[in-house]
This record gives sequence, C-alpha cells and structure tokens, in this order.
Amino acid sequence: MASRLSHFTHKTSFFTSNPRRPSAPCMSAVVSAARTQSYWASIDAEIDAYLKKSIPIRSPESVFEPMHHLTFAAPRTTAAALCVAACELVGGDRDQAMAAAAAIHLMHAAAYTHEHLPLTDRPRPRPGIQHKYNPNIELLTGDGIIPFGLELLARSVGPARSNPDKILRVIIEITRATGSQGMVDGQYQELGLDRLGSEYDVIEYVCKKKEGELHACGAACGAILGGGAEDEIESLRRFGLYAGTVQGIQGKNKAGFMEEKIEKLKELAVKELESLQGKKTELISSLVEPSLVAVHIS
Amino acid sequence: MASRLSHFTHKTSFFTSNPRRPSAPCMSAVVSAARTQSYWASIDAEIDAYLKKSIPIRSPESVFEPMHHLTFAAPRTTAAALCVAACELVGGDRDQAMAAAAAIHLMHAAAYTHEHLPLTDRPRPRPGIQHKYNPNIELLTGDGIIPFGLELLARSVGPARSNPDKILRVIIEITRATGSQGMVDGQYQELGLDRLGSEYDVIEYVCKKKEGELHACGAACGAILGGGAEDEIESLRRFGLYAGTVQGIQGKNKAGFMEEKIEKLKELAVKELESLQGKKTELISSLVEPSLVAVHIS
Repeated sequence: MASRLSHFTHKTSFFTSNPRRPSAPCMSAVVSAARTQSYWASIDAEIDAYLKKSIPIRSPESVFEPMHHLTFAAPRTTAAALCVAACELVGGDRDQAMAAAAAIHLMHAAAYTHEHLPLTDRPRPRPGIQHKYNPNIELLTGDGIIPFGLELLARSVGPARSNPDKILRVIIEITRATGSQGMVDGQYQELGLDRLGSEYDVIEYVCKKKEGELHACGAACGAILGGGAEDEIESLRRFGLYAGTVQGIQGKNKAGFMEEKIEKLKELAVKELESLQGKKTELISSLVEPSLVAVHIS
Repeated sequence: MASRLSHFTHKTSFFTSNPRRPSAPCMSAVVSAARTQSYWASIDAEIDAYLKKSIPIRSPESVFEPMHHLTFAAPRTTAAALCVAACELVGGDRDQAMAAAAAIHLMHAAAYTHEHLPLTDRPRPRPGIQHKYNPNIELLTGDGIIPFGLELLARSVGPARSNPDKILRVIIEITRATGSQGMVDGQYQELGLDRLGSEYDVIEYVCKKKEGELHACGAACGAILGGGAEDEIESLRRFGLYAGTVQGIQGKNKAGFMEEKIEKLKELAVKELESLQGKKTELISSLVEPSLVAVHIS
C-alpha cells in the first residue's frame, strides 16, 4: 500500500490556506478524508486539553492570564499533532507523547508571540494581529512560555510514561529545533537579516528551518517516546522535515510559483513512509496528501 | 565556627556597588578577602571557559556571532558561581556543576538582553546600554540562548558527570526559577505591570523573584549535582534566596533606605549555613559577608 502513495492523483491538503478540492470526489474518499480529519482533530483536542490543564489561570494572574491567552492565540501547529501521531504509529500510547506535543506547541506559541512584537526596527502595525497586551507583556510572556514548555516535559517522567533518558533526548531534540540552529535561524533569514540567494531559495530555507525542522522534531520525538527503532525515528524525522517544509511553503503567498518544489517534497515525504514496513502510515501520510490514501483504498 | 558567623562586625561585600570598607582592616582579613576573591574569580574563569568552548562562532555566523557576543556582554551573575561553590561545598567536583552554572548564566544573559530591548512602549534610549545589534537580532538571540542553555544541560549526562534523574531535576529547577513563577514574575513587577504595595515592597519582591530565586536555584542545583543530602540542598537554596535578594537590593539606588532589611536578610543567609555541619562554609558565606570570616579566623 505504502509504495503506491507517491502515485497520487488528488492534491488536496487540510493545511493549505487555499485547498484545491477535486470537483467530484468519490464517496470513499470523502469518508476517509473525514476519518483522517477526525483523527487529527482528536489529537488537537487532546493537546489543547493537556495545555489547558497545565496552564491554569492562577496567581500571579497578571503573569498567567497572558500566558494562557497567548498559548491559545497562536495558530495550532501540526508539528505537535505529528508528535502524537508518530508515537502511535510506532506502537506507543498517545499519553506518552502528550507532554512533548504540548512543549512543541508552547515553543511555537512563544516564537509566534515574539514574531509579532512591535520592535522599534520593525514596520508597524504588523497586519492581521490583534494585540491584547502591550509589548512588554508579550515579550515577557514569550520568555516565560519557553522554559515552561521544557519544564512540563522534564516533569513528565513516570513509570506509565517515559524514562529519564528518553525525556532528555526529547529535550535535546526540542531545544535544537527551536534554537539558534533551527527555528531562530529561519526567523533570521525571514527577517532578511542574512541573505542566502534568490527569493525562492530564501523561502525554501526559511520554511525548512521553521516549519520543516519543527515537524522533523515532532515526528522524531513522538517516535522516540513511542519506542520506535532508530531507523523508524530517522524515517519519521525526514518525513516531518519534508511535510513541514511543504506546509511552510504553502502558507506563503509565493507558493503558486513553487509547485514543482512542493510536489518534489511531497514525493520525498511519502517515500520516507514506505520504509516503515507494516505500520499504518495512512493517517500520517494525510499530512501531505489527505485524499490520496482514500482514493487508493477505495 | 559557623555559629559565630552572625556576629559580624565588618560589612564589606564584593557585590555592592558602593562597598563600605572598614578604614583599617587587619592583615588576616586582607589575606582572607584575597583568598575568597580568588576562589570566586577562579570559578568565574572556569564558567567563562566552558561557555566559550560551548558557543563557538560557527555557521551561520549571523546567528552565532551575536549569541556569543550577548552571552558575554551580560554582567556575570554570582548565581552561576554559587552553583559551582554549592557543588563543591557538599563534596562534589567542580565539573559536575559546570553545565548547570553555564545554563544559569545563559538564562540570565537572555533575560538581560530582552530587558534592554527597545520596545515601542518602553522609554528609550535605555541608559547605560550599548546596542551592538538591532532589536530584531537581540530579540531572536535571546530566544536562541534560552533553549541553548537547557540543551547544554540536557547533554551533560555522563558517567563522569551526572545521571539523567539529577539532570532532569536541575532542568526543572532552572526552568521554574527563570520562568513565569520566578524571574519573569519579577520582571513584570519591575516594569510596574502589576503593583504590589509600597516602593520598598516592590523592590524587595522584584529582587527576591529575580536575583533571589536565581541564586536559590543556583545553590540548589549545585547541591543536587554534587550529591548533597536533601536538607543540605534546602539550606543552600534558602541561603541563595537571601544572598541573592541582598545582592539585588544592593544594586538598586534605594538600597541606602533598606539597610535594616539588608542586615536581616544577611543574618538569615548566614544562619542557613550554620546547619551545614562540618562543611567548609567560609568561602560561600563570603557571598554576603566577605570580611566577617576573616575577622573571626584571625
């Protein structure tokens, strides 16, 4: 089944801002799309519930109320959901990946908050952002969210969950992906602080460093926590890198000029899943191609 | 010896901006002050060397050069040095505490960098700060330093160093002290985002949350990593809280009006060391009273 995944015909994605739906999908495609959609939605709902439980609005409220608000004001990243899905894919329980998925969302929420800070050398106002708090609060809240995410993870050791070695490994994965070698590097390039090449080269690099590496990290962390073998962890990491980069490019207004690149990355992503013999890769592959599995199953 | 520490006569501190030196110190006080000064200087030099080795200026240079610069542009915090000293005090090797001390300095450096960011709702220019980089770079660099510090710590597991359980415990200590319940809370109050009471109440609260909890964390982490008993860890944590709060208040221009509070906190700090039976507390006590040990020894 997995080997047929690259011969897809439909190119619908839940994650593009302008999904191009096939004009007349067959019934089983609709059913399966609903199934994958409900799978991802159930993961998102569990991550949200975990975060809500972890960040109660408590004293000092002036600190925790913005933390709560800005955690949920950031758009959801499928990197967090991918962490849970990868854990399940390799045979782990959803619970084992929940703290890591929450930490990934929190790191993403902190970055999102800081990306929209009105700094004196940024054009303002940044479009599309409603600032509920003043910049001082948004800066400090982001600064509080980063260590909180890692604290949550460090606390998640337990007999029913993961051992300290795995948690430390996951902490290293997350700190690398969100730090100066990963997301922060992407943000630098995005701000034009260090030019790399053509406009499209920059877009690809930024999307690889931001969405790509965050998804790679999510997939690898989920596979580590779920007890995957090393080759499974690395296949899922590469799948995440390609899938996340695709998603990043699709979110840019230049995506229409990069169709060839997007198709290539999707093929690479799907190819990585082929090596996961005997695993139920249909749900996870829907991250790049939600309809293709349905079409082939039907 | 320890029980006599609270009956000090001289009130000199290395860490006040305006040390009031006794007019004619006896020779042994001078010798011992030199000894404690050299002790702290040797720790600082080792932490610096560890940080320099850990943050090479490598590719992408546009990211790592500011990270290197801003790490060392921040003033040294004795919280990092206290981590190493506490480790040695309970019988550990200096090496065991080095990653944690470096992480504490890095978290402090990130906070320092972000505190001096020119935000649109801050008065500018902030006095005394030379900005080598533009605000975008300083923001992102701080965002990169936080996960890097924790990555460094997570990587420091090793047979010659510490086990994963201790490292995870130390990660929880550091993320708590530098997050929304610790340093970030203090920064909120400092910015007047949430008023607590009188001006002096606010100063005390801010110094407790910022310098106090960072020093408490440093002392506790050092004691954990050095293999201290739980009661030693807690005594050193309280010592750090008092000593750090004193240091914070002494750095404010209102310190002159808070002498009574400072003396009280110093007494509490020294009292905590009394419970550390059989330990060489002279060097560590110099953090609040560099001369008093010397006077009593002489």
